[in-house]
This record gives sequence, structure tokens and C-alpha cells, in this order.
Amino acid sequence: MTRDAMPNAFRPGAVDLTPQEADLVARRQAALGPAYRLFYERPLHLVRGEGVWLHDAAGRAYLDTYNNVASVGHCHPKVVAAMAQQAGIFASHTRYLHDTVLDLAERLLATMPKQIGHVMFTCTGSEANDLALRIARAHTGGTGIIVTENAYHGVTSAVAEFSPSLGHGVPLGPHVRSVAPPDPRRIGADAGAGFTAQVVAAIEDLQRHGIRPAALIVDTVFSSDGVFAAPHLLQGAVDTIRAAGGLFIADEVQPGFGRLGEGMWGFSRHRVVPDMVSMGKPMGNGYPVAGLALQPGVVAEFGAKARYFNTFGGNPVAAATALAVLDVIEEEGLIANAAAVGGLFRDGMLALAKDHDHLGELRAAGLFLGQDVVTDGAPDAVKTSRIVNGLRDAGVLISATGPKGHVLKIRPPLCFAAGDVAFFLDKLQGVLRRL
Amino acid sequence: MTRDAMPNAFRPGAVDLTPQEADLVARRQAALGPAYRLFYERPLHLVRGEGVWLHDAAGRAYLDTYNNVASVGHCHPKVVAAMAQQAGIFASHTRYLHDTVLDLAERLLATMPKQIGHVMFTCTGSEANDLALRIARAHTGGTGIIVTENAYHGVTSAVAEFSPSLGHGVPLGPHVRSVAPPDPRRIGADAGAGFTAQVVAAIEDLQRHGIRPAALIVDTVFSSDGVFAAPHLLQGAVDTIRAAGGLFIADEVQPGFGRLGEGMWGFSRHRVVPDMVSMGKPMGNGYPVAGLALQPGVVAEFGAKARYFNTFGGNPVAAATALAVLDVIEEEGLIANAAAVGGLFRDGMLALAKDHDHLGELRAAGLFLGQDVVTDGAPDAVKTSRIVNGLRDAGVLISATGPKGHVLKIRPPLCFAAGDVAFFLDKLQGVLRRL
Repeated sequence: MTRDAMPNAFRPGAVDLTPQEADLVARRQAALGPAYRLFYERPLHLVRGEGVWLHDAAGRAYLDTYNNVASVGHCHPKVVAAMAQQAGIFASHTRYLHDTVLDLAERLLATMPKQIGHVMFTCTGSEANDLALRIARAHTGGTGIIVTENAYHGVTSAVAEFSPSLGHGVPLGPHVRSVAPPDPRRIGADAGAGFTAQVVAAIEDLQRHGIRPAALIVDTVFSSDGVFAAPHLLQGAVDTIRAAGGLFIADEVQPGFGRLGEGMWGFSRHRVVPDMVSMGKPMGNGYPVAGLALQPGVVAEFGAKARYFNTFGGNPVAAATALAVLDVIEEEGLIANAAAVGGLFRDGMLALAKDHDHLGELRAAGLFLGQDVVTDGAPDAVKTSRIVNGLRDAGVLISATGPKGHVLKIRPPLCFAAGDVAFFLDKLQGVLRRL
Repeated sequence: MTRDAMPNAFRPGAVDLTPQEADLVARRQAALGPAYRLFYERPLHLVRGEGVWLHDAAGRAYLDTYNNVASVGHCHPKVVAAMAQQAGIFASHTRYLHDTVLDLAERLLATMPKQIGHVMFTCTGSEANDLALRIARAHTGGTGIIVTENAYHGVTSAVAEFSPSLGHGVPLGPHVRSVAPPDPRRIGADAGAGFTAQVVAAIEDLQRHGIRPAALIVDTVFSSDGVFAAPHLLQGAVDTIRAAGGLFIADEVQPGFGRLGEGMWGFSRHRVVPDMVSMGKPMGNGYPVAGLALQPGVVAEFGAKARYFNTFGGNPVAAATALAVLDVIEEEGLIANAAAVGGLFRDGMLALAKDHDHLGELRAAGLFLGQDVVTDGAPDAVKTSRIVNGLRDAGVLISATGPKGHVLKIRPPLCFAAGDVAFFLDKLQGVLRRL
């Protein structure tokens, strides 16, 4: 895999497709153009979802061990009903008074440290991180951004400039510095201290170029960097960016809403209180809703100078849907489930690794697992791809991540059960045997 | 009104609120923070919508003559049903094959000139204009942007830099130049030639500063500039930006989807073919879906260097909902209705203006009307606000726009009927008599 290729991307012409698949691929290329990508060597034509299962057009079922948006299960009836009910009653915007958006804001704030007092609503995680940038600039007067070296924070013009995982075709901004993730193999056994030292160096480099730091933004489980799941790593880095006049933004778009099996948010595992917390993907179980929680002092300057309005952001349907997701997480005990089933998953993977040398280091928290694939200890993106595509053929969906494309990205819906883990491990074992 | 104040914004403390209203306002300020704004001197607490009517918590009905998102009518049952049905079946993203997003793309393209061959999907108009900017930069190698002087194109970091209507607290980028809208009172009787001359001057100024032009972006009915509805104004400006190596982006987020009563898109009234067309607000009748249609040659460079993925953009629920909106526009003849009822509306306003000197120039196309409010011929934002708030008290919703806040912004759902116009005019007459 080249540095810039998307892991697990379909390459037209590499495999023979059915006439129906070929027709859909041709229609996509014609109608959507050249910037869209499909997953897998043979793309999946999915038509139905329920719980942890997805079904293709031929009626075949796939165990979804990847999609973190439908986090409480595909097409959860309670969430769909809440959305449909509110959409049938009232669906306008936040320039009228409505209690649903306030119920949601207050409920989200109740999951946060007391220092975090406001929530602003957007439609996507990209918009949330873009808004965080605007607010950080207004508050600090600075522009410098520090990110991890394969981070993904979104696709707006400004956020793409600090999303190095988009590849060299999308250049980083001149005000952006990247640091290695807290991987003890690279920055020393005390990964927290090593990470802090890197942030110190990045700040010094920004200042050396006359750029005042605005923010350090971190995905709290380092999803795109390959999943680094150890806790208690960030306090030094947070103290450092604040001492330099910048803010700390926790990007919870991937780790948030209970996936890590310990409370709602990844930042709490690091025992830090962010200045801003962006959230998205699983927030509406598929409905486009996202947001930015923040400490009030941070947004005072922005609020005095600018107004914020997002036509669809925080609309009553978005709010009702997101409230239903929070209900389901509580009622179905999904955070405890993520911890328990995630533990089984980790144990099963570790057991499998004893018999399969290609399984290298495993890093996991709750239902977010990153499994290195190696050959003679070295990253092996080709074997990673063969595992991902072999599992697809065996009826199990995952993908790959990391700067070298050699990390299995395992991230099922939070309602994953012990039997689903057993099914996954059985299929993975079969693929590994044929590798 | 100061240059930077939002027209028709609620100012806390200006009027006494009911305890329930005061409680909601206090909860908003606490939970959402200082950047949010409400409409009206006395904010509206809305709880229900149906067709062209909205209902407040006290059971009072308001004729909605303003909201262009619920464009086929609030809570249209066919649209809600399509959304709920697809959400119950499958709701994943565009990295799997699915026909719904292709059906939508092809259906949208069928409404466009043949030169426009692709559609890319986002969740908001802001994201669509932000993507247009990224593509324009990649294609042209330039960064310069030309906008009208009170334009609004969105709220991302990059798009806010070319949205002067956000006020002086949100500075324009150093690469942005603004031009007056095609208002014959300001740029001469031949507004098209006058507009072209301004674009020529803006390009020269960009080049004088060493900035290569990337794009001219224009809301095709100049919504935030005060509604300039005359057709056939843009060809010279489009030719000019292209001759300078830049692209022409038609922002159809407000004028699009039939509102102007002549076809689907405002740009066609100007007989130009844009390089890119952004669309949003009414596209899902409230569901967060938006997009960017473009000429294939424009996105070739971007597609070769970058991939585009928007987690929720173009998901099957978004696509099914947007398809239902297109169905309703066709089945209910809403474009013809916008033309016919819009004509009645215009005639009624012109008749009313004969007896009321405060009604100045009216500019209208279909169901998008901009009515100047003047005193002795001069813009009068105070009287404008009294009319907007007087209508609210009389059970009719509109708002105000324009750089001086003196333009009544009248923009009802497309299913507005002749009787609704009569109701509106009767209430407006009452307000004007008491002015």
C-alpha cells in the first residue's frame, strides 16, 4: 500500500463483478464522479440491516464488526420510531424555542465534567471540528494546530488541512504540526511522557515559525493512527498546550458514546477535562447529527463577535433521535456490554494470536480493537488486506487502518453479543489458516 | 440596526416573557451558550407544523410565509413516510453499493444542463459550498473568491470567510473580494453590464495583489443581499471569471428546487451553465441532505489527488427522503404553483403598496419576494422590524434581510395557496395601518 492509498479501497478492474455489481459501479462512476471510493476488492451491495447483521442483494448475511454509526444496532426500532414521530409533528430550526434540543443538550452535559457547560449542534463531525477551530482561533488569537500524524478529523477545507490521513494529495496547512501517537514502541515505555515531549517540540516549532498555538486536537483512542487504547496518557500534553495559550480539543467522533466500555467519553479514561469535545457518528445511529460541547469561557469571545446558526443542526428531529439513542444506550446497558463483550473479544483475539504469527500487537478498549498484522514482526498491509477481504467473503465485515494500512479495525455495534464474538473468531481463524 | 446585527433577532430583556418562555430562554442561554440567536422581539415557542401552518405551545396557529426548508409543506406525510421506511430497512454510507443514492444523483442530473455530469453529497449547504471551494482550488490552482457584498454561503471556517452577511466579527479572508449585487439603483440601468464591470474590477484587484482567482460564487436570486430577482444578469460575469481562469459556482441553497417558479434552478433564469451548483435547505424538506453538482472536468484533478467521504452524505435515508421531495414537487405541481401563487402574491403586494408609502420597491420571482420598507424613500430598518413583529403578533411569519435590514424576506412553502396570500395581505394591511 502506498502512503496515500485508502486501506481496503475497491480498485476497478481488479476482480470480475456480477453484471448487477458492474452496473452499479458504472452508474456510480458516471453519477458521483472520481472522488468516491468503495470498500473491498469486491464491493458489497447491501440492502438491509438489523441489529449486528447486514444483508446483501443476493440475500447473504454479514456480521457487521465494523460500522460504528449504527452503534445501537442497525435500524433500531426505538430510534427509527422516535425520528419518524418527531418528523411527523415538527421539524424546524433553533431560531424558535423548542424543548427537545434543550433536553438533549442538558442530557449530554450531564455526562460531562462540570466544567463543560454548553453544547452547540451541527450535522456532522467535520462541522463540529470546524466549529471548534473557529472558536479556538477566536479565543486564543492563535492559528497553530497540533494533530497526530495519521489523524482524521474531517473533510471541510479547514479540517482537511489537519487530517493527515487524507494523504499527500491533501496538504497539511502551514500552521499544522503533527506528532506520533502514544505508541511505546516509538516514543518510549512511558508513552504519556513521550507524547508530552512531542507536543512540547511541536509547540516550540510553531513558535519558532511565529505561529501562536490555537489547539491540540486528539482522537481519544487514536482511531486512524492504528488504535492506541492505553489510558492516562494525555494530562501532560493537555497541560503543555494550555501553558502555551492553546486549547485541548477531544475528538470523540469515533471513541465517544460508550464504545470504549468505560463511561461515555474517551477523554475520561485519560482523566483530563477538555476545553472542547466534538462528537458525531453514533450520536443519531445514522441520522446526521453531531455537536461540540465546551467550557463556557472558551466560547465567550466567539459568541460576542459572531452568531452561529446551522439550519439543520439541533433541529427537533435530530434532537429526538439523539435522545432515543441515549435512551437505548442506558436501557440496554450498552456501555457495560461494550466492556464485557469487548473483554471476551480481546481474550479471544489474544488466544488466536498464540497460534497465528501474523497477529501482532492487539490494542483494545471496549468494542474498539486494533490488531496489527505482521510478517516476521514487520507491518504487512498485503496480508491485512487479504484478511479483510477473506472475512468479507466469509460473511464478516471489518476494515483496516493506520499509516501503514496494517491494523485490523474492529469496531462493531455496541449490541454485539458473546455469540457474535465466537462467530467472528471462528471465521477469522478460517481466514488465517488459508492465509 | 447596526451593520453587524442579525435582522429580526431577539434581544433578551426587551420584552416581558411568559414564565414558560423565560424558562426556555434561560435554559437555552445556559445549555447552548452565547452564539445562538432567536427570531422576533418575543420568541416563538413552536410545537407543531402541518402544510403552511405552524402552531405554538399555546395552541395558536401561524401562517408560515418564511421557512424555505419545509418547502413542500411542514411534515409532509409522503416525505416522512419515505424517510421512516428507509430508516427501518438500511441506513449505511456510500462505501457500499446502493441504488438509492444513484437514483437521486441521476434524477438531479436530469434537471440540469447536460454539461453537469456528477453530483456529490453532503449534509448541509455549508458543506456543499466548502467542498466547492476545495474543488475550485484544486482545479484552478487559485485561491481568490468573489462574492456579493452581503452574501451568505455558510458557516464552516473557509465559507464564513466569504460570507460577509455574518458581519464584521467574522472577517473576510484576504483572498476574498466583494461586489455589489445587480441592483440597477446602484450599478446602472443595465444591471448585467454593471455586475460584469464589478467582477472585472474585483479580478483586477485580486491579480494586483498576486492572488489567482478560483471562483465567483453567487446566490442566483441574491437572497441575503435583499433579493434581486431579474433574470439574464450573469452571463457577462460568468464569461469574465472563466476568462481569468476561475470557476462559476451557482449557490442554489436558497433559490433552488423550484422556488422561483421557473424550472428547478435559479441559474437557468440567467441562461448560464455553472461549473458547480450547490444545493441544500429544501432538498430533504428538513432532513439534513445537501449536495454539489458539477461539470466532470472540474473535479478530475481533485478526484485524482483526494478522496471524498461524508459519513452521512448520500446515505440511503437521505437519498430516499430527497427522492420523495422530488416526487412531491412533481406530483403536486409545485413549480407551477410557485409561479401562479407567486404572481398573485406579487400583484397583491403591488396593490397594497399604492396605499402604503412605506412599501418601496418589490422584487420577486415565484415564491421568493423581497419588499423594501422605506420612509421618504430611505431604507427603514426600524419600521421593517415593526412590520415583521407586527405580523408575528397577527399570526404570520416572515423575516427581514439585506445589508440595511430593511427588506421583508417573504419565502413561504411552495404549497402556498391563493387563500394563504389573501390571509397574508389582510394581516399585512392591518399591520401597515397601525404602523
